[in-house]
Amino acid sequence: MSLPQSYRRVVLAKRPPGEVSPDDFRVETAALPQPKHREILVRAVYLSLDPYMRGRMKDVPSYAPPVAIGGVMAGGIVGEVVASEHPDFKPGEIVEGSLGWQEYAIAQGTELRKIDKSLGPISWSNSILGMPGMTAYFGLFEVAGVKAGETVVVSAASGAVGQAVGQLAKIAGCRVVGIAGGKAKCDFVMSLGFDACIDYRGGDLDAALKAAAPQGVDVYFDNVGGVVADAVFKQLNFFARVALCGSVSQTSLAAPEMGPRLLGLFVGRRVTMRGFIVFDFISRYPIALPRMAAWLKDGRITYREDIVEGIENAPKAFAGMLKGENFGKMQVRLGPDPK
Amino acid sequence: MSLPQSYRRVVLAKRPPGEVSPDDFRVETAALPQPKHREILVRAVYLSLDPYMRGRMKDVPSYAPPVAIGGVMAGGIVGEVVASEHPDFKPGEIVEGSLGWQEYAIAQGTELRKIDKSLGPISWSNSILGMPGMTAYFGLFEVAGVKAGETVVVSAASGAVGQAVGQLAKIAGCRVVGIAGGKAKCDFVMSLGFDACIDYRGGDLDAALKAAAPQGVDVYFDNVGGVVADAVFKQLNFFARVALCGSVSQTSLAAPEMGPRLLGLFVGRRVTMRGFIVFDFISRYPIALPRMAAWLKDGRITYREDIVEGIENAPKAFAGMLKGENFGKMQVRLGPDPK
Repeated sequence: MSLPQSYRRVVLAKRPPGEVSPDDFRVETAALPQPKHREILVRAVYLSLDPYMRGRMKDVPSYAPPVAIGGVMAGGIVGEVVASEHPDFKPGEIVEGSLGWQEYAIAQGTELRKIDKSLGPISWSNSILGMPGMTAYFGLFEVAGVKAGETVVVSAASGAVGQAVGQLAKIAGCRVVGIAGGKAKCDFVMSLGFDACIDYRGGDLDAALKAAAPQGVDVYFDNVGGVVADAVFKQLNFFARVALCGSVSQTSLAAPEMGPRLLGLFVGRRVTMRGFIVFDFISRYPIALPRMAAWLKDGRITYREDIVEGIENAPKAFAGMLKGENFGKMQVRLGPDPK
Repeated sequence: MSLPQSYRRVVLAKRPPGEVSPDDFRVETAALPQPKHREILVRAVYLSLDPYMRGRMKDVPSYAPPVAIGGVMAGGIVGEVVASEHPDFKPGEIVEGSLGWQEYAIAQGTELRKIDKSLGPISWSNSILGMPGMTAYFGLFEVAGVKAGETVVVSAASGAVGQAVGQLAKIAGCRVVGIAGGKAKCDFVMSLGFDACIDYRGGDLDAALKAAAPQGVDVYFDNVGGVVADAVFKQLNFFARVALCGSVSQTSLAAPEMGPRLLGLFVGRRVTMRGFIVFDFISRYPIALPRMAAWLKDGRITYREDIVEGIENAPKAFAGMLKGENFGKMQVRLGPDPK
């Protein structure tokens, strides 16, 4: 495949105070760079779109610096090496890294993780065999410390992380209740083997949770925060654990929404609530990835992706995902799959 | 000391929806009971008044059953055995137990913990060498897992638990910031060796916290919840721990107050928040008590109690404590100290 002279990238045009719109971004064309000494030129094939990126659009202190106005939007990609001045990387190799919303990028060797194509489709390195899948694995097994026989509730259950959480919890011998928006997503969640799925748009969430988790909730894997989290908190058992993965219901708000103060409830029930970032567990990916790959291979885990075509559609897909319009792990295919 | 024919006790007269008033209780006189086979008659000397008791006045599911209307108010006492039909308890022995707001009570052997008078004044068995002191010890060392060099913030810093938390954290090599209401309490807190004390009534809490904890907050020991907790949360460092002991600011509210949703903040900063009840650690009191007693003996810990006289004053003292009117660990002396 011959290399083009230019490529496209998406930059942050402005910082929206609230809901994200495609107009907050701008597609630019730039000249294709050449790798210098120990650099690698990567052609991005799949761009991952994830809720955490909303945080990078804000100019506030966080665990990662904000994207500058006019800077390339932050994001992970999986792609192929097309030129390399680094002794450890060769054209044709598949790699994954946080190279941003762009069709091509120059990378350092330390920024890239090599992908074993034999484990599955390369897009999985952005999903079930990448950040969302590892978030599910370490969030459930390490942060929440789930045990066989417990009842696990996961929100955004059809999403990138949630569908993996539920299936892993079933493998671990748990009763699993998903929460998702709408009948189609709930039907999908049930097809994955969840014991119950609650449509949070469908009415009385408290009553639905009581019915779906008659023994109470031992582990809550929270992807959304807000009123859904409040409802689950009320059903927590003694010594319950809450793994906080992110509050997508809050991420587009200019200031924190108000909600009932529930800390007192956590005292008597001895609840442990822990926020986490999957990169804290990166040294143990080599333990988790082969396990996940084996479960995918034998069909104990299946995984749904929502893939749109073309970098020009990334802003719209991202804005929609933040409103729950995606169905499965959101990705953008930027170009043809490698041979 | 000869035994009286009757004794006084305080019963719950009604369940207040909000703030507690002395009228919610009633003082009764009852005939002195006789211990039956394997029972012990205890004369209560000090009644402990603690915020958790507000929870027992509510008819809602909790880790302990509610006090019935007309029933004796729940509470811990330290006192002396005055008659015993139990082979392991003899008149004159000092014991501690949850025998309620009453001058005399019949107890089973399993309800009582024998007190070693050589460790200090017997009232300490309701305070620094009892539930509040053990709450401080296990909350700080086990729940929060404090480490030397960290910055610890504790609210209600002059209170039963807070004053112990701060002094234990100093012993553990930490920078310690107290939060208390009013100058007198802050002066007292500083006299205990805290590095800083913030009067939460004194204006801009955010700015005061930033100044008092310039390296951020690694451990927050929360006794109050509400706006004070919100302010501390904003200063939490990466991998901070929050030990939730109780939300005294919320305990008298009919329904949870509203506050900003801050779960998202806990994700990026990887905060662990854990509610606890000290009785979960009761099997390890024998490890903690001699340590605490040794620190008291050598003056590394000092402890302030706020003692009122007479059971008839318990309702007023309790209502005042819930509003922060006490200064130190609130107790009621029900009768003369044992010889």
